[in-house]
Amino acid sequence: MNYKMMGRFLAQVLSIEGIFMVPALCISLYFGESAAVKGFLVTLAVIAAIAAILSLLCRGAPSAFNAREGLVCVGLIWIVMSLVGCLPFYISREIPSYVDAFFEIVSGFTTTGASIVPDVEALSNGILYWRSFSHWLGGMGVLVFLLAFTGEKGQGFTMHLLRAESPGPNVGKLVPKMRETAAILYLIYVILTIINIILLVVGDMPLLEAVSTAFGTAGTGGFGVKNDSLGSYSPYLQNVTTVFMILFGVNFSCYYLFLIRQWKSVLGDEELRLYLGIILGSILLITLDIRDMYATLEETIRHAAFQVGSIITTTGYATTDFDLWPSFSKTILLCLMVVGACAGSTGGGLKVARLLLLIKTLRRNIHQMLNPRKVEIVRNNGQTVSQNILDNTNAYLAAYMIILFSIFTIISLDGFSIETNLSATLCTFNNIGPGLDAVGPTCNFSQYSALSKIVLSWGMLAGRLEIFPILVLFSKDTWKRR
Amino acid sequence: MNYKMMGRFLAQVLSIEGIFMVPALCISLYFGESAAVKGFLVTLAVIAAIAAILSLLCRGAPSAFNAREGLVCVGLIWIVMSLVGCLPFYISREIPSYVDAFFEIVSGFTTTGASIVPDVEALSNGILYWRSFSHWLGGMGVLVFLLAFTGEKGQGFTMHLLRAESPGPNVGKLVPKMRETAAILYLIYVILTIINIILLVVGDMPLLEAVSTAFGTAGTGGFGVKNDSLGSYSPYLQNVTTVFMILFGVNFSCYYLFLIRQWKSVLGDEELRLYLGIILGSILLITLDIRDMYATLEETIRHAAFQVGSIITTTGYATTDFDLWPSFSKTILLCLMVVGACAGSTGGGLKVARLLLLIKTLRRNIHQMLNPRKVEIVRNNGQTVSQNILDNTNAYLAAYMIILFSIFTIISLDGFSIETNLSATLCTFNNIGPGLDAVGPTCNFSQYSALSKIVLSWGMLAGRLEIFPILVLFSKDTWKRR
Repeated sequence: MNYKMMGRFLAQVLSIEGIFMVPALCISLYFGESAAVKGFLVTLAVIAAIAAILSLLCRGAPSAFNAREGLVCVGLIWIVMSLVGCLPFYISREIPSYVDAFFEIVSGFTTTGASIVPDVEALSNGILYWRSFSHWLGGMGVLVFLLAFTGEKGQGFTMHLLRAESPGPNVGKLVPKMRETAAILYLIYVILTIINIILLVVGDMPLLEAVSTAFGTAGTGGFGVKNDSLGSYSPYLQNVTTVFMILFGVNFSCYYLFLIRQWKSVLGDEELRLYLGIILGSILLITLDIRDMYATLEETIRHAAFQVGSIITTTGYATTDFDLWPSFSKTILLCLMVVGACAGSTGGGLKVARLLLLIKTLRRNIHQMLNPRKVEIVRNNGQTVSQNILDNTNAYLAAYMIILFSIFTIISLDGFSIETNLSATLCTFNNIGPGLDAVGPTCNFSQYSALSKIVLSWGMLAGRLEIFPILVLFSKDTWKRR
Repeated sequence: MNYKMMGRFLAQVLSIEGIFMVPALCISLYFGESAAVKGFLVTLAVIAAIAAILSLLCRGAPSAFNAREGLVCVGLIWIVMSLVGCLPFYISREIPSYVDAFFEIVSGFTTTGASIVPDVEALSNGILYWRSFSHWLGGMGVLVFLLAFTGEKGQGFTMHLLRAESPGPNVGKLVPKMRETAAILYLIYVILTIINIILLVVGDMPLLEAVSTAFGTAGTGGFGVKNDSLGSYSPYLQNVTTVFMILFGVNFSCYYLFLIRQWKSVLGDEELRLYLGIILGSILLITLDIRDMYATLEETIRHAAFQVGSIITTTGYATTDFDLWPSFSKTILLCLMVVGACAGSTGGGLKVARLLLLIKTLRRNIHQMLNPRKVEIVRNNGQTVSQNILDNTNAYLAAYMIILFSIFTIISLDGFSIETNLSATLCTFNNIGPGLDAVGPTCNFSQYSALSKIVLSWGMLAGRLEIFPILVLFSKDTWKRR
């Protein structure tokens, strides 16, 4: 295991985390929030110390990673980044328990948006900003940022790291150089976020709220700055957020193809079509189901669209208490939780691309069963999908199910209802945020025991990193010397 | 499509069904139950008419089936067998709605045991016997019976039929001839059932009740003859049933290997070990969790063991209202519902063998991810598992998940709680029987709408026949001429 290389990466990632903490510190200084200022300053000192020691210890590491080291590195870096990133919450005493603070920042970085804070509006501005910013950073990935904008070079190892950190069954390159691909993706991400902020400010949202809300939308995170999430904002602001949540759930390659005018590829993309089809179908069904609950049709469609967009992209914002909706609508939302957004977006869940591959392998196997002598091939957008990717997709589903049931069983020890536990499990593991019943949109996760919070945090990390970087940390094979 | 051959098979299956209805008719005659006698007589006349017409129309069919025809034949035969088998319930007016009667017999043949009868004790003896007997016939399979004991010959087509009707990822032959394999399996099944009846009668259970209870245990069905299932029977009778439920959840090949003294193969069988391990672990955890709910430790362990054995083998008998147990115990039971019994047993669910294969493919894929250049092979009991079986297992999991969520969504239209709908879906699709909450052990399925009952019946058939024979009926490819 190339520990020196990992150490160097860790030092760089922590430095980036520190740099990104400075704006939050400035906001706290501006508003005169002394406890938060102390929290950020102490954390920055800790980061500086760790980064300095690691840089000293890990000089002259060979710049090469194999697949195993890539996976382990990503898993470890995300854990350390969270252990350090939650310090401002804890030191400022705005979240007095370390486990709670850890849960909150993991929920931020993994773009889950599940919160243990009962009264969000009581938090200071600097802390609220940092909490929302964690969504933005986690959404596209901190290692992707590192590879895009620092001096790290080399093709092989960047590929392994990007593969491990980016969501979806198959990470493609947009341009021959992986580093430029990462930079292009981040650029699209920044531009979309800025447009979103502008549109929110135009609708009279205060700047700091607009920035935080846009961070939550861009990362498909879901931490709000109000206790009722987006319930009290104007219909215009809610609709802008609906559109941008859905946009950030699209595979970012589509935007690149759009920019280089490959309209045909974008329009013909099977994942995009299925994604939009599921969204439209769900909005229609839910609108029919809840037609008697709101005053006007406009309001009904607005709430249906917002909640569908929020759940399928795994954002987790809410404009209404959907826990009060009838069973059918709630069940559709539960199904959307599992499906998740497109691969290569900032959203979580199984991913529409995987669903597509699963349906296609299933169809292939039925054909094969009916015609044992014919050999069938699975195609995606016209191209043959390798057996390796199919195997991995299936292994992913198996791992997904096993982890889901494990988390579900462990947290049931706290004695909450099956519905609460099931939706808490789905909402954290799929990086959505609020669930149903006792963890519904008007409630939060603070009632769970420390053990459950740690298990759920682990689940959020496993969900964000698509299971394997976290799972291999527990494999004997990983730590074997060879 | 070889329709003539299918017609001939259908005529034979219906004749067997008719012959097996005669004992029920005799019981009704003995107790002077005129409505039931009328029900059985009319049904027998209908069967005779259909069988005669089919035999006339389908003479001289070529004795050869391909895989496609085998799958379709099994699916269709089970549907027709149920459409006819429910007639005694309906004609005798003991179940006045045809949809309800159909649900009840599908629940019987698929060994589910979910009931729409609110007061079981009000049913006549003949009807109760037929209801329980449907478990016994469905447990091992009616086509397996046909192939074992009638004059049908030919290797290729029997293999296809057996594969489609028998549960598990890989149907093996015990002896070179498939027909003898089927006969051996049925012989073991009969002997175990008789021993079970004798042990129940020794414990002072009335003969007819003992026979019905043993039918439900052998088929891992779960229809009881009392309203409180097995709650009012003596601890001895409950314990006998616990042991036999677990025995009928074991792969029947193990008993054959046991009889021919291949102890080593039996003891070393990976599936058997995992199955027993899961059972012991679950009993232990539930006993700890419910230790304060019953008077003595003996009673606690007895109830825990009974419920675990009943749920993992997908029988569905109950000795206590486990819906009142704490969340942790209920969650363990929900997980056991999904796992199910061993392949090649009469139990339902995913099957322990599939769980084992899924864990092994997952482990292989992690190894492969860590060591991209090594080629790993999945082994079961020391033998290499072919990629074909692994692909099918994965396709099965995908189909399983998709169907599960579809049923869950459709029945949610009736407006019951998420917990009720989820457990109703799991309980019917996995052929278990009673669920939790509104379909818990003290309640039943009569409250659902006709649409939900039909969807749930479809789910029971799909679960019993391991999805594909039912799924191919909806595939365009199946009905294409070639």
